[in-house]
Amino acid sequence: MRRRLPSPAMRILMINPKTSTSVTELIATAARAAASPGTEVVAVTATTGVPYIATRAEAQIGGRAALELLAEHAAGCDAAVIAAFGDPGLGGARELSPIPVVGMAEAAMLTACMLGRRFAIVTFASALAPWFRETVDYHGLAGRLAGIHTLEGRFSGIATVQDEKEHLLIDLAGRAVSESAADVVILAGAPLAGLAARVADRIAVPVVDGVAAALRQAETLAALKPRKATAGTFRKPDLKPSTGLPPALARWISGA
Amino acid sequence: MRRRLPSPAMRILMINPKTSTSVTELIATAARAAASPGTEVVAVTATTGVPYIATRAEAQIGGRAALELLAEHAAGCDAAVIAAFGDPGLGGARELSPIPVVGMAEAAMLTACMLGRRFAIVTFASALAPWFRETVDYHGLAGRLAGIHTLEGRFSGIATVQDEKEHLLIDLAGRAVSESAADVVILAGAPLAGLAARVADRIAVPVVDGVAAALRQAETLAALKPRKATAGTFRKPDLKPSTGLPPALARWISGA
Amino acid sequence: MRRRLPSPAMRILMINPKTSTSVTELIATAARAAASPGTEVVAVTATTGVPYIATRAEAQIGGRAALELLAEHAAGCDAAVIAAFGDPGLGGARELSPIPVVGMAEAAMLTACMLGRRFAIVTFASALAPWFRETVDYHGLAGRLAGIHTLEGRFSGIATVQDEKEHLLIDLAGRAVSESAADVVILAGAPLAGLAARVADRIAVPVVDGVAAALRQAETLAALKPRKATAGTFRKPDLKPSTGLPPALARWISGA
Amino acid sequence: MRRRLPSPAMRILMINPKTSTSVTELIATAARAAASPGTEVVAVTATTGVPYIATRAEAQIGGRAALELLAEHAAGCDAAVIAAFGDPGLGGARELSPIPVVGMAEAAMLTACMLGRRFAIVTFASALAPWFRETVDYHGLAGRLAGIHTLEGRFSGIATVQDEKEHLLIDLAGRAVSESAADVVILAGAPLAGLAARVADRIAVPVVDGVAAALRQAETLAALKPRKATAGTFRKPDLKPSTGLPPALARWISGA
Amino acid sequence: MRRRLPSPAMRILMINPKTSTSVTELIATAARAAASPGTEVVAVTATTGVPYIATRAEAQIGGRAALELLAEHAAGCDAAVIAAFGDPGLGGARELSPIPVVGMAEAAMLTACMLGRRFAIVTFASALAPWFRETVDYHGLAGRLAGIHTLEGRFSGIATVQDEKEHLLIDLAGRAVSESAADVVILAGAPLAGLAARVADRIAVPVVDGVAAALRQAETLAALKPRKATAGTFRKPDLKPSTGLPPALARWISGA
Amino acid sequence: MRRRLPSPAMRILMINPKTSTSVTELIATAARAAASPGTEVVAVTATTGVPYIATRAEAQIGGRAALELLAEHAAGCDAAVIAAFGDPGLGGARELSPIPVVGMAEAAMLTACMLGRRFAIVTFASALAPWFRETVDYHGLAGRLAGIHTLEGRFSGIATVQDEKEHLLIDLAGRAVSESAADVVILAGAPLAGLAARVADRIAVPVVDGVAAALRQAETLAALKPRKATAGTFRKPDLKPSTGLPPALARWISGA
Repeated sequence: MRRRLPSPAMRILMINPKTSTSVTELIATAARAAASPGTEVVAVTATTGVPYIATRAEAQIGGRAALELLAEHAAGCDAAVIAAFGDPGLGGARELSPIPVVGMAEAAMLTACMLGRRFAIVTFASALAPWFRETVDYHGLAGRLAGIHTLEGRFSGIATVQDEKEHLLIDLAGRAVSESAADVVILAGAPLAGLAARVADRIAVPVVDGVAAALRQAETLAALKPRKATAGTFRKPDLKPSTGLPPALARWISGA
Repeated sequence: MRRRLPSPAMRILMINPKTSTSVTELIATAARAAASPGTEVVAVTATTGVPYIATRAEAQIGGRAALELLAEHAAGCDAAVIAAFGDPGLGGARELSPIPVVGMAEAAMLTACMLGRRFAIVTFASALAPWFRETVDYHGLAGRLAGIHTLEGRFSGIATVQDEKEHLLIDLAGRAVSESAADVVILAGAPLAGLAARVADRIAVPVVDGVAAALRQAETLAALKPRKATAGTFRKPDLKPSTGLPPALARWISGA
Repeated sequence: MRRRLPSPAMRILMINPKTSTSVTELIATAARAAASPGTEVVAVTATTGVPYIATRAEAQIGGRAALELLAEHAAGCDAAVIAAFGDPGLGGARELSPIPVVGMAEAAMLTACMLGRRFAIVTFASALAPWFRETVDYHGLAGRLAGIHTLEGRFSGIATVQDEKEHLLIDLAGRAVSESAADVVILAGAPLAGLAARVADRIAVPVVDGVAAALRQAETLAALKPRKATAGTFRKPDLKPSTGLPPALARWISGA
Repeated sequence: MRRRLPSPAMRILMINPKTSTSVTELIATAARAAASPGTEVVAVTATTGVPYIATRAEAQIGGRAALELLAEHAAGCDAAVIAAFGDPGLGGARELSPIPVVGMAEAAMLTACMLGRRFAIVTFASALAPWFRETVDYHGLAGRLAGIHTLEGRFSGIATVQDEKEHLLIDLAGRAVSESAADVVILAGAPLAGLAARVADRIAVPVVDGVAAALRQAETLAALKPRKATAGTFRKPDLKPSTGLPPALARWISGA
Repeated sequence: MRRRLPSPAMRILMINPKTSTSVTELIATAARAAASPGTEVVAVTATTGVPYIATRAEAQIGGRAALELLAEHAAGCDAAVIAAFGDPGLGGARELSPIPVVGMAEAAMLTACMLGRRFAIVTFASALAPWFRETVDYHGLAGRLAGIHTLEGRFSGIATVQDEKEHLLIDLAGRAVSESAADVVILAGAPLAGLAARVADRIAVPVVDGVAAALRQAETLAALKPRKATAGTFRKPDLKPSTGLPPALARWISGA
Repeated sequence: MRRRLPSPAMRILMINPKTSTSVTELIATAARAAASPGTEVVAVTATTGVPYIATRAEAQIGGRAALELLAEHAAGCDAAVIAAFGDPGLGGARELSPIPVVGMAEAAMLTACMLGRRFAIVTFASALAPWFRETVDYHGLAGRLAGIHTLEGRFSGIATVQDEKEHLLIDLAGRAVSESAADVVILAGAPLAGLAARVADRIAVPVVDGVAAALRQAETLAALKPRKATAGTFRKPDLKPSTGLPPALARWISGA
C-alpha cells in the first residue's frame, strides 16, 4: 500500500582530511556506487597535511583539516562523512556542524555490529593498528572487536595499494575469521574504498566497506532529520574569539 | 554527476513478536513513514504469546515467536526487523536467516551513537527497565548509555499509551537530558512507534524512533547485500532433527 | 555440640530443555551421585525442540521449553536446575518461579570461582563456544574466564560423546591449564555430566562438573529458603492475557 | 528412587580473623543453624589484631591472622570459611590450604547471584564501604553490584549491633531495593550473622546471610571434593625459608 | 651517606595550546613555584586558536597548535608539558617528540592515584565536563574517577576566574568529597593553576594542582632519561611529504 | 628568571617488606642513584616473613610487615616507598601513614603510562605472574597492560638473579615489544633494582626501573606536600583496641 512521493534529492559531503586527490577519487567512486538513487556525492580534499594518515600526529593534523573542510562545504549538504578510518576530528565536527556528521570507522563498525557479534578490522599497513585501536576504544566498541589484522611490508602507492595487496588482504581476512573468530570483516582505510564489493565472495563472512557503510549511514541520518541539539554535550558551542583560523571555521567558532 | 538506475524495489519484513495487531499497525505506519521510495513494508504479528512484552519470560516466549514468523515470512523479503525493543530472538534469527535481520533496540542504539556520545532510553513503563538494561549490556553498549528513564503509573491501553502519556514522556526526556547529560534520546518500545516525529521539536536533543531507525538500518543492510556467513558464529547451523516445531521453523532447523 | 533434627527430605527438579532422554538419564545419574542424603532428584525432558543445543536459535527454543517444563513440574519441588550449559530461559524462569532456579552454567562458574581465580570451560564441540561465551558475558563473569577450549571433529552420538572423547578432553583440559593459566576446569555441557568425577585425578587443577555443581547449589538455595521477591526485577510479573501457550505456563502468565 | 548411604560427617572450620570472641559466638551459632545434619562447626578466634575489621589496615592484619589460624586448625576439617566480610587473606589461604577455603563475602555474593541479577550490600557502619567495594572489585563482581548501603551513627557494641540497629537496617534494605533496584540484599559483616533469618519477611527481596551462605558453600566444596591443584596459580607454593612466623604457618611455608 | 653532585640544570617546556598570554603567565608562575631547584621553566603560547579550550572542536585546534609549539621549542628542553587539562595533541606529541611529553590532565590524574583510590575533578565551567570525561576515558582511568564536579554560571575573565570563584570551588570540592566519596580532589583547568596551594587546607582531602603535578612529572621523566622508542606505537613515525604545515612541524614530519 | 632557595633536604623511607638484606642493599643503591641532590634514602628490612615474595600468601605476610616497618620508621621521613612489586600492604599503609606512601608497582606503572600507551611487565620468575596480574587489576590499570612476560627456570640466588639472567631478560623484553606491542617495558621485582639503567640501550622502547620510579614519585609526593585526609576513605582510621601487635603499629591503631 505504498504511495509516497519520490524522496527529495539528497547531497552527501565526503570529506577526505588528507591531501591525496587520488584517494578522494577512490572515495567518491565507492560512495557513488553505494548511494541511493537521487543522492548526490560531493567529495573534497584537504589542502594542508599529509597524503594519508598513519599516526596519531597525522590524525591530529587531519582532524583540524576536517573541521576546516566541513565549515567550508557543509552549506547545501544534508549530511557529511569524515572519510578516514580513524574518524579524525569527529567529535568537534559533531559539535559545530548544523548537519549530521558520521565517521568512516564509526559507520563501518556500527554497521558490522548488525551483521554479527564481533568484527575484525583488516588493513594494509601495521602502522595503522594503534590508531585504529584507539578509535575502537573511543567509540566504546572494544567488546565487539575480534581483532585488528594488518599486512606487513611496503606498498608502491596509496592509490593502488588495494590492487597490489588484494590477494594478501583476502588471505588476511581469512585468518581473521579462523583465528579471531570474527563474524564480520571490515576492510579499513580510505585507500581500500571499493575493494569489499570486489572480493566479498572470496571471504567467508560478511565484509563491510567503510565508504559504502558511511555513505549509507549518512543518508540514514539525513533521512531521519535529527534536530541540532540545543542542550547536551553536542549543542552548538558558545561563540568565542579566535585567532588565525581559516575564514569559514573562524565564522563557526567566533560568529562572523 | 549522478546518473544511476532507479534502485530496485525493496521489501522489509517487520516482525511484531507480540500478539497485539493494533501495535503491529503502529509499527507498520511508522515504518512506512520512514521508508525510502520504492520500499515495501510487510508487517506480521505473533499468533502465540502475549500482547506486549514487559518481562524476561515474555521476551523468551516472544523470541521463539520471532523465529517462527521469520521462518514463515522471510522468503521474498530483503531484510527483516524484530520490532520489539529488547530484540527478542535476535541472535538465533541472525544465525538461521538467509536475509539480514536487525533488532529495534539495536538499530535505535547504533543510530543514536552517530548522533552523540551517550543516549538515554525513555519509555512508558518501569517494568521494562531491567529487560532494556540487559539488552544494552548484550549489545556491549553500556558505555554509551546515559540512563534508562521510565514513567511510573498505569496506562489505559497499549495501542494508545503514546497519546495518553505524550506530555509526561516529553518531560521525562527533558529530565534525561538535564540529569543524565544525554546527548540523544531514544523513545523506546514498539507502542511508542511514530511518537518521536511528533514531539522532536519539544526535546532539546536529537530523538530516535526505534521503528524508523530499524527500518532505515534494514534498508541499509539490504542495500549493502552482505553475504550469508559460511564461517564464524553466525553461519547457518548444521541441520539436526527437531520435534514439535511449526513447519517453517522446523524446515530451517531440520532441513525439510 | 551439634544436635539437629534430620533435615526434611528435599526434592530437586532437573530440567533438560532438550528432547534427548538419554541425556536426561546422564543428568539424573550425575545429579543423584552428587546429592545429599535425603534429596530426591526429579528429571524431566523437553517434548518440543532439538535433542541437544548448540546454537543461539536452539537455545531460544530450549529456553521456552524450560519455562514450560518448570511451570508443569515445579509444584512439590524445592528448587530447580536448568540442565543445559547456556542456561536457556534462566532469567524468565527466575521471574515466574515460586521456587529457586539455578542454571547449570551459572552454578558451575560460581562454584569454580570459589576454587581459583580464573576458570576454563572445556567442551566437546566448537559450535558451542559462541553460545557459551555469551553465557559467560550474561553472568558478568568474563573477568574470571581463562578461556573456552573446544574439541574439533564429529562425534558418534550425544549420549556417548563423553566416553568417545574422554582422552581428548583430558588433553584439552591440560592445555587449558598450561596455555590459559586456568586455576579450575569446568567440563561443560549436559552430555559430559558425570565425566569430571571419573577424570579428576588426571587433570592438575580442580575440575567442576556442571550437573553436580548445579544440584548442590540448588540444594543450597532450597536450604536457605529465600523468599519470593515482591519487589525488584525478579518479582512475580503482573498477570496479562496470553494466547496459545501450554496450560501450565499460561496459568503462570495469565493466572488460571 | 534414592537409596544412598548417610553422608559421612563433615567438619567445617569457621575462622574469625578478629579478636572478639563474642562475634565468634554469633558466627558459630549462625553457622550451626544453617548447617546440614551431620556437619560439625569448629569456630576459632584470632589471638592478635583487632576486635572487628573496618579498614584496609585492619584487614591486612586480619588476613595474616587468618593464615595463622588456618594453618593451625585445618587438619581434620573438610573445608574452611574466613568469616569476615572482606575475605581477608583469602587468596593466600587458597594457595596454602590442603582443604577448600571460602570467604564470607565471596560466598554471600556468589549465592546472591543465583537469586537475582544485582545485589545490594547492606551494613551497619559507613567505614566499611570502601573495604567492601574493593572486595567486590577483587572478585570481579562489580557488574552485579546494585550498591553498598551503610548506616551512619555509632553503635554500643559489636556483639549487639544487630539488635540495636535491626529496624534501621530493615529500612536501609528497603531503600536499597527501591533506590538501587537491588534484586537481592546481603546483610554484610560478621556482626550481623543470623540477622537475615529473623528479618527476611520484612524485606521485599531475598536476603542473604553471609555466614549461612558461607557455611553452605563450604559444605558444597567439601562434598565436591576438588583436588588440590598441582598446577595453576593456586598450586601449593614452593617451600622457602621463613623467619619469625608462628610454628604452624612456618611449617606450611618452609616445610617443617 | 648522600654525596652526589648537584643535578645538572633542567629545562621544562610548558606549552599553552591556547592564545591567552595571561593564562600562560598563570601556568608559568605555578610551574616555577613547584619546580626543583635548578629547573628552568620555559612557557610558550599558541598563536592560532582560541583563548581557552572548552569543547572538542577547540581541543582539536589546540592539539595541532601544541604540535606546532613543541616542534618549534623542544630543542634544548629536557621535557615538555601540554598545559591544558584535556591533554590536546598528547598522543601525536609523544610520537614525534625527541623529549618526554606529559599532559596536564594525565599528570594530575596519575599523581592523584598515588594519594587515594578515587579522585574527583573539580572545575569552573560545566562546558568542560564532556571533554574532561573523554580525557579520563582516553587514559583508561574511569575506574579511578569519583566524579566530575563543575560550577554553573558565567565568569568575568579567564585569567581571574580562580579568584572570582575561589569560595564556590572550595564548596564544590567539599561536595565532591561528601557526595562522590572522593579521596583526592584535582582542581582542573589551566586557569586554576596555583589555586590548589592557596586553598589546600580548606579541603578535607589532598588537592592536586595540574600544573604543579605536570611540572614535577616532567622533571621525573627528564631525570629518568627514557630512550626514544625505536619500536612500538610511539617510535618516531616514518617521514612522509606534507603540505602547508609550519616549518618546524613540517621538518619533524617530512624531514627537512 | 628562576631564583629559588635550595630545596630543603628530603628523606625517603624505602621499606623492604622481605627479610633479605642483600635485596635491601640493591634497593638502596638503585634508589640513591635515582634520587635528587639533597635526598636522603633510608632503607629498612622486614624482620619476619620470607626473603622474597612470590605468592599471595607471602604478600599477605609481607603486607603486615610493611605496616610494622612504616609505623616504626616513618617519623622524620618525608615519604615512603613499599619496595616490593606487588605493593603489599599499600592500602592500609596509606590509611595509617602521616606521610605519603607509594608502592613500587604503582609508581612503575603510572610512570610507564606517561611514556606510552601500553606497558609490559617483564620479570624473572613465572610464579610472580598471578600476583602481579592482581596488582595491575587492583590499580585499575588492566587497560594499559600489554602483557606480563616471565622467564622460566630456576635461579641461583635472589641477590644475583639480575646478573645471572640479564641476557634472557633483554630477550624477553624484546619479545614483549614485538609480540605484545608494548610501548614501554617495566623490569619488575625488587631483585631487578638497577638493571634497567644498565640495559636500557639494548631494548627498543623506554624501560622503567621500579625502584627509580618509586623513589622519584615519592619525592614528587613529598614536594607537593599533600595534606593528610580528614575525610574520604584514606582518612586516619578511628582508634580501636588491639592485641599482640608490635608497639609502633599498636600505637598507630590504638593510640599510645
